[in-house]
Amino acid sequence: MAEVRPAAEGPTVAGLGEAGLLARILPRLAGAPALLGPGDDAAVVAAPDGRFVVSVDTLVQDQDFRLEWPNGYRTTGFDVGWKSAAQNLSDINAMGAVATALVISLTLPARTPVAWVESLADGYSAAVRTLGADRCALAGGDLGAGSELAVTAAATGSLEGRAAVVRSGARPGDTLAVCGVLGAAAAGLALLESPLPYARLGEAERALVARQARPLPPLAAGPQAALAGARAMLDLSDGLVRDAGRMAAASGVAIDLEAAALEGDAGALAAAGAATGVPPLLWVLSGGEDHGLLAAFPPGAPLPHGFRRIGTVLEAGGLEPGGLGSGRLPAPVCVDGRPAAEALARLRGQRPGYDHFGG
Amino acid sequence: MAEVRPAAEGPTVAGLGEAGLLARILPRLAGAPALLGPGDDAAVVAAPDGRFVVSVDTLVQDQDFRLEWPNGYRTTGFDVGWKSAAQNLSDINAMGAVATALVISLTLPARTPVAWVESLADGYSAAVRTLGADRCALAGGDLGAGSELAVTAAATGSLEGRAAVVRSGARPGDTLAVCGVLGAAAAGLALLESPLPYARLGEAERALVARQARPLPPLAAGPQAALAGARAMLDLSDGLVRDAGRMAAASGVAIDLEAAALEGDAGALAAAGAATGVPPLLWVLSGGEDHGLLAAFPPGAPLPHGFRRIGTVLEAGGLEPGGLGSGRLPAPVCVDGRPAAEALARLRGQRPGYDHFGG
Repeated sequence: MAEVRPAAEGPTVAGLGEAGLLARILPRLAGAPALLGPGDDAAVVAAPDGRFVVSVDTLVQDQDFRLEWPNGYRTTGFDVGWKSAAQNLSDINAMGAVATALVISLTLPARTPVAWVESLADGYSAAVRTLGADRCALAGGDLGAGSELAVTAAATGSLEGRAAVVRSGARPGDTLAVCGVLGAAAAGLALLESPLPYARLGEAERALVARQARPLPPLAAGPQAALAGARAMLDLSDGLVRDAGRMAAASGVAIDLEAAALEGDAGALAAAGAATGVPPLLWVLSGGEDHGLLAAFPPGAPLPHGFRRIGTVLEAGGLEPGGLGSGRLPAPVCVDGRPAAEALARLRGQRPGYDHFGG
Repeated sequence: MAEVRPAAEGPTVAGLGEAGLLARILPRLAGAPALLGPGDDAAVVAAPDGRFVVSVDTLVQDQDFRLEWPNGYRTTGFDVGWKSAAQNLSDINAMGAVATALVISLTLPARTPVAWVESLADGYSAAVRTLGADRCALAGGDLGAGSELAVTAAATGSLEGRAAVVRSGARPGDTLAVCGVLGAAAAGLALLESPLPYARLGEAERALVARQARPLPPLAAGPQAALAGARAMLDLSDGLVRDAGRMAAASGVAIDLEAAALEGDAGALAAAGAATGVPPLLWVLSGGEDHGLLAAFPPGAPLPHGFRRIGTVLEAGGLEPGGLGSGRLPAPVCVDGRPAAEALARLRGQRPGYDHFGG
């Protein structure tokens, strides 16, 4: 298993100890103030409307990221902190909520350089600031040792008096829309896993790697979608087809994606596709970790800024809402009326999305 | 590294896949209902007084527990789920709050038996029920793979309109009190790590092992202490001397423990001490993971049910409140006026408490 390489002169977490490490990390955790921040058994966070949303996600070395990739890119602590913040903030966003706090649990091999952990703290702070989570406190956490590096964050958010936007609210006739890029993080992953040296990649390809290493969830868009009347929403973390399938299953509907609406996404990844031999539409349909939003809006409702139509919600296994004779949908998620699984199989025989256990 | 041994016929998490595993776990997660429970990107939890407390803690295989101990005891999924719940609920308790939700992130080696994970879910549910966290929802979580087994839980709680009881509020003259046992979990750990076969232990020794495997935080006591005017409080997770040191540092005070008040705790561990060759007072002063409460109450205030006096809060480095001539305390934490570190050194040359990185 790869280790974070020690800096030439720098101390390791084992050398510094828990209290010393905390003293290095805490001053780097910028963010909004909590009612009570790090240093006690728990933080205290405001919940002005008498409710809060809460979610938790873990990133594990060699499973969710590699410290050293085949193309030579070395994942920094900053990357891991940013990605952990981003994936958790995205879950809050997908409920239509505004993030209020992150608490962080770090599992660190004893030989991890202190500088790497400082960089991790900087990554959390930078993500919160850059992504616009300006009400989000970095409110505390926990340190422990382990043989592999893992970071878990729990995020909380405020619904600001609104109802949560759940997965199960999509209705036949709704417009299916996305906010954010599709497939960029998967293209970045393919570049990281390719033998093409990172040092020789162009700006555009490096930007795709950055989308994998430091995702950019559109944090203003979740609450805006809620205000605009979104009936169902989720975070695009595991791939469009798979996440659309989750919305379909939870809502008891079918979803038809429009290939024409995805052409632009695939076109933007053409160069990376050519470089790696992957059809870009495969990334668009099945690539995870973009952390955009997938939402269903009532028919005819104007889409909020940043959202674009990519399909339609239909009756599960039934007639299309347009009417008689238009036929039954052959699968819960289709592309232009044909099962999405067929499109994916044609594109590379790859299953949709990603299963942590390969099941 | 030890693995959870597969059951004779049972499937592994890799065989079942993520969705299948979730379908097995979710029905086992009992607890109070959340406003919105598992199945969406985040749960929704009530925060009636417009605030909540939040904390996060991780347990890692071979660091925080062993799957197989030297004495032959095999840690069950039930144990790990219980312990994860207990240590997180204890953090909420230590703020004077009532637990409202747990969200759980599991990192599972692919070969982990599904039955072990089902047992883990049962352990969370049983802990919440048995410990009296009857307002606590098991509200959701996250599944992922990794080479070592790790569980992280984030806990939230309600202060019910009260101020949080922090570490920094102790004042000279306050009564220092504890609720819960001292040293039992450490004695259990010593038994687990000893060559004495678990199968041959008596009931009393097995009960100590159980306190290590399935701690019993006194969840009613935290809110009661807050109501009784506790000025400072924390969770006894890392050992009495170390945790008292944290209260002393945060409050800018010194703490004098009374050896006579700890004799009963040590006496209760005499048999385990004789069996393992450890002076029981060492466990009482430095053993972690009991998850009782350490609190400072105003002078003369009646202690709430379950708390007992074990010492006094004094001025940091200054005169004892009793007055002139009584001398300066030689260390932030003392036992009968002498540095606690001396007592610990005498008992075994062991540093107080536990540092995750050995620093």
